[in-house]
Amino acid sequence: MLSAVERKIEQYIIELNDKEVLAYYAKLPHGKRLRAKLILKIAGNSLTIVKTAAVVEMIHTASLLHDDVIDDAYTRRNMPSLNALYGNKTAIMLGDILYSKGFFELNNISTDVAKLISNAVTQLSLGELNDVLLAKSFNTDKDKYLHMIYQKTASLIEASAGAAALLAGKPKEVYMVYGRNLGIAFQMIDDLLDITSDSATLGKPALHDFAEGKTTLPYIYLYEALDDEEKQMLRSLHGKVLNGEEQAWIQSRMQKHQIIQRSYHEAKILIDEAIVLMEQCGETALLGIAREMIDRDF
Amino acid sequence: MLSAVERKIEQYIIELNDKEVLAYYAKLPHGKRLRAKLILKIAGNSLTIVKTAAVVEMIHTASLLHDDVIDDAYTRRNMPSLNALYGNKTAIMLGDILYSKGFFELNNISTDVAKLISNAVTQLSLGELNDVLLAKSFNTDKDKYLHMIYQKTASLIEASAGAAALLAGKPKEVYMVYGRNLGIAFQMIDDLLDITSDSATLGKPALHDFAEGKTTLPYIYLYEALDDEEKQMLRSLHGKVLNGEEQAWIQSRMQKHQIIQRSYHEAKILIDEAIVLMEQCGETALLGIAREMIDRDF
Repeated sequence: MLSAVERKIEQYIIELNDKEVLAYYAKLPHGKRLRAKLILKIAGNSLTIVKTAAVVEMIHTASLLHDDVIDDAYTRRNMPSLNALYGNKTAIMLGDILYSKGFFELNNISTDVAKLISNAVTQLSLGELNDVLLAKSFNTDKDKYLHMIYQKTASLIEASAGAAALLAGKPKEVYMVYGRNLGIAFQMIDDLLDITSDSATLGKPALHDFAEGKTTLPYIYLYEALDDEEKQMLRSLHGKVLNGEEQAWIQSRMQKHQIIQRSYHEAKILIDEAIVLMEQCGETALLGIAREMIDRDF
Repeated sequence: MLSAVERKIEQYIIELNDKEVLAYYAKLPHGKRLRAKLILKIAGNSLTIVKTAAVVEMIHTASLLHDDVIDDAYTRRNMPSLNALYGNKTAIMLGDILYSKGFFELNNISTDVAKLISNAVTQLSLGELNDVLLAKSFNTDKDKYLHMIYQKTASLIEASAGAAALLAGKPKEVYMVYGRNLGIAFQMIDDLLDITSDSATLGKPALHDFAEGKTTLPYIYLYEALDDEEKQMLRSLHGKVLNGEEQAWIQSRMQKHQIIQRSYHEAKILIDEAIVLMEQCGETALLGIAREMIDRDF
């Protein structure tokens, strides 16, 4: 049923009646459509559900367009990003067009769904802002990290699950916890992949986050585990482009203190919680999506 | 009653529960609140109207934040713009936060109003995109210019007037024509001021639009009036930073062909139409706003 979602998105884009936008949209990668899958698995595939999934994916695409400008990212999924191809201006405006068309269409679905999704967009924008702010210094506060990734990544997945449950007449709160756990775990794994994958797989240099000043969960755990001298060393590397020796030092320290395993375990706990919740609801179709979240290229 | 609108906006910002955003918002100029004034004059000052005006002004502010990033503008109203102070990233995200909070709050007002306003945001974003695209070549097509300024500037004023009329139980269509005419005239005058004002008044170099590649109405009329050799000359200056002699040449040609008067007259026709419409509706309070539109620093 994902193809019905793709067709609905295309229809929305065509309704904008702008050739340039249609051409730009055709250049965008579609991604995994994780949020759409989640919505369809929770709520089925009636027209209202397909519309909701289409809107959420448009909104997610808009957030990625702005995110790539924010992060000065010139590739996404190993392809040049839209801002790399057509400049930041186009990426910003195309994002605004997709956001506002999405909000417009939400008014044709349900006020409660519109509120859930628009609130999530506020949260994810606050999260992006906090991501940039936190990266300005060496953040060692795990709660701040968790709140930021909740806002940046989990809020829209949480709202997608909540909206789907609402439309399907299922208990909204339980599905929102499920979505929130999935989202936080997803971002934790993303942050881990930045450390464990090579640059060819990532489509960006490894340890890119740390060079950008982002102290993701593994760096926070590593910092806690290091002695004072090593703590100083790690701080001195923060926000710098690292040479091979410096990268190797970080990775050896992470290995010694089993940081990757510990961080992975933390994501796994969230997924296990989500799985138990869905088992209790008899939602066996939702167990697979949860497992996929932490079994990515690992 | 504008102060009630300001307080409502502040309340919305406080509800975001983010200290950084509150601090950024405090640095933003409030502007003339033209759209809020218009809404209050059409629909009175009940709580719903104040909320609508507050949302529209938040959305307008969001569009200016993104507009300044798009235009590489480092000043607004002779003050450093937010992107100049805190970087493009902050300006993009703060814009997204204001947009999404605005859309969220629209759901507490009325679905019809939410549709009108969100559709206008799509239009204004399409307009910004087209503004950038049109500036890539020497546009001599008046219809394209008019459509672009309708989208970029008039659509939100049109929707504001329409939303206010809807909430006040007045005929939506008439007020939307009024708002559209005001918006188009407003942008025409803005484009004229870029030519007639000095750089101290504008807070940016005079003839800035043309240097950026924008052939606003006066340039389209001038081009039509010039002979072939002069047409070539004008084309050769397009998209370049002009020296004093080149600026003087353009201004002398405009003077010779009475381009400023002709462009001003075109804006005046729209305003006169708007005034007649409102006189027919017995809306004497709306005549002044229309006149202010074309009597700015002129």
